[in-house]
Amino acid sequence: MKTDDLLQLLSTDSFVSGEELSRSLGVSRSAVWKVIRQLREEGYKIESVTNRGYKLVSSPDVLSEAEIRKGLSTKVLGSMISASQTVDSTNEEAKRQAALGAPHGSIFVADQQTGGKGRLGRVWVSPPGEGIWFTILLRPNDAPVHAAAITLLAGLAVCKGIRNQFGCDAKIKWPNDVVIGSRKVCGILTEMAAEMERIHYIAVGIGINANTPSFPEELQVRATSIALELGHPIRRCELLQEVLLEFEQLYDAYFVQRLPGFIEEYKNWCVTLGRTVSTFHAGKEISGTAIDVTLEGDLVVQLSDETTITVNSGEVTVQGIYGQ
Amino acid sequence: MKTDDLLQLLSTDSFVSGEELSRSLGVSRSAVWKVIRQLREEGYKIESVTNRGYKLVSSPDVLSEAEIRKGLSTKVLGSMISASQTVDSTNEEAKRQAALGAPHGSIFVADQQTGGKGRLGRVWVSPPGEGIWFTILLRPNDAPVHAAAITLLAGLAVCKGIRNQFGCDAKIKWPNDVVIGSRKVCGILTEMAAEMERIHYIAVGIGINANTPSFPEELQVRATSIALELGHPIRRCELLQEVLLEFEQLYDAYFVQRLPGFIEEYKNWCVTLGRTVSTFHAGKEISGTAIDVTLEGDLVVQLSDETTITVNSGEVTVQGIYGQ
Repeated sequence: MKTDDLLQLLSTDSFVSGEELSRSLGVSRSAVWKVIRQLREEGYKIESVTNRGYKLVSSPDVLSEAEIRKGLSTKVLGSMISASQTVDSTNEEAKRQAALGAPHGSIFVADQQTGGKGRLGRVWVSPPGEGIWFTILLRPNDAPVHAAAITLLAGLAVCKGIRNQFGCDAKIKWPNDVVIGSRKVCGILTEMAAEMERIHYIAVGIGINANTPSFPEELQVRATSIALELGHPIRRCELLQEVLLEFEQLYDAYFVQRLPGFIEEYKNWCVTLGRTVSTFHAGKEISGTAIDVTLEGDLVVQLSDETTITVNSGEVTVQGIYGQ
Repeated sequence: MKTDDLLQLLSTDSFVSGEELSRSLGVSRSAVWKVIRQLREEGYKIESVTNRGYKLVSSPDVLSEAEIRKGLSTKVLGSMISASQTVDSTNEEAKRQAALGAPHGSIFVADQQTGGKGRLGRVWVSPPGEGIWFTILLRPNDAPVHAAAITLLAGLAVCKGIRNQFGCDAKIKWPNDVVIGSRKVCGILTEMAAEMERIHYIAVGIGINANTPSFPEELQVRATSIALELGHPIRRCELLQEVLLEFEQLYDAYFVQRLPGFIEEYKNWCVTLGRTVSTFHAGKEISGTAIDVTLEGDLVVQLSDETTITVNSGEVTVQGIYGQ
């Protein structure tokens, strides 16, 4: 019996009898009872009334496979879900499983990362319960040149997910940080294994500061969480489901239908555009106005002499963001 | 004592006494003797004359670490050399060792591959003693977009190595097969692990048909070996050393000095240019004349209506090559 099948059956407005559960799931009533007891231990509130049966009253904020699957409306993303209490890093776990053949659309989630990584080898702090730390494993039948789009899509999916679910004014700092106001709420680390002509896999690691109650003083000017913005904790599982759905729709439009329509929407929510930015280019610091993002994912910067340069990677400081 | 230090000392025109060897290497005379006996078992011809000492007369065609290192004049390539009798695939071995931290410039050679791979998952037949099957591990401090150049550089290095050493009229079939006449003598499979902005490593797998005595009938129109072209077997180690040296020079010019000067030389030896080619483009078969190779590694094809398209990956059939 799958725990998530039971949860699905219990998630109705009316009570369901033990006999009906036992029949629907094809297991004994004592097996049903054991799983209900286990779910209660995990924090699920399951009401039981003699002669009427069981009803799910509330679920805890756990990122279990069953919780994630319940109500997940994606077609392919999440066909395999690996949910752990603790891993070194969900990207590392995804890469290990990819080497063993994990399929396209596999999701790796952890309540806590002990070695969470940001871009360029930086540390990403990932305490238990505070964030949504997960990796989406993708196997597009495509050349590595298309991988840059993935990272833009991922940022856009998180931005839209947060906007839809909580109404926060989330925006994207190019290429794929998600910010609320001037503070970072999500970082993304995309890694790939490829031949020159063919991607073996892409691991999109996403870290969302969901319920972080507070940040160290030195980070307060540049980091926030959704809970801090809203003034109350959120249910992580629902946001994860929303982000996966948004991502799948954007991905299918780009990789399956070959419609790069996302770029206009991306630019619409991109906080970098129109601002003064500075970066290192060809070995020296330059600054100018960010005026466009190309389909290849490059940022176009107009310098004071009206010439433009395109930046395809690296650090870009945006005036007014992260305390700059 | 390192075996290659001893081989180095023995590789002179005159005899070297056992006492001198023992002193230079800082080991006992019986230790020297043991290594000399072992080398003779491996096929080295070492002359010994009473009261004069030892002299290396000839080396077997083995791809041992000592043989490769002796006379290798690269600066960084080969700082770590792993030479095996048999591996599944030198690219797989390189990737495993890369994950454990193998440094930039490491070389992985095998006398035989049991699971040799070509591009796009194809099988690469790699019998013992017949070829030079090796992988160069690189860690350029660069974005994945530069990886395409690597694969052109590798093809050019092999082409030049064969030309320099044997005078064969080796050429390059875009992007990086090496051909003699209309037949393939070398294939290259480049794989990488990367973030969007940073290459973690590149594994350049190179398979050269060096001493293959004959090919199955169905392959004879499209495959050759250097031994078949010359009419006698070659010493694999010397060609490997030459290719490594060529590659290092090209690599340093491109990645260190940022001089993309190689592209003119590449085009000079590219057999594809000026020929009729056909390929699949945007879902349909097209054919035209190959007229250029760009710095990004793309092939420019002019169609019959004078328009041009650029091809950045996939199969390109070249009239007159591989029996087409």
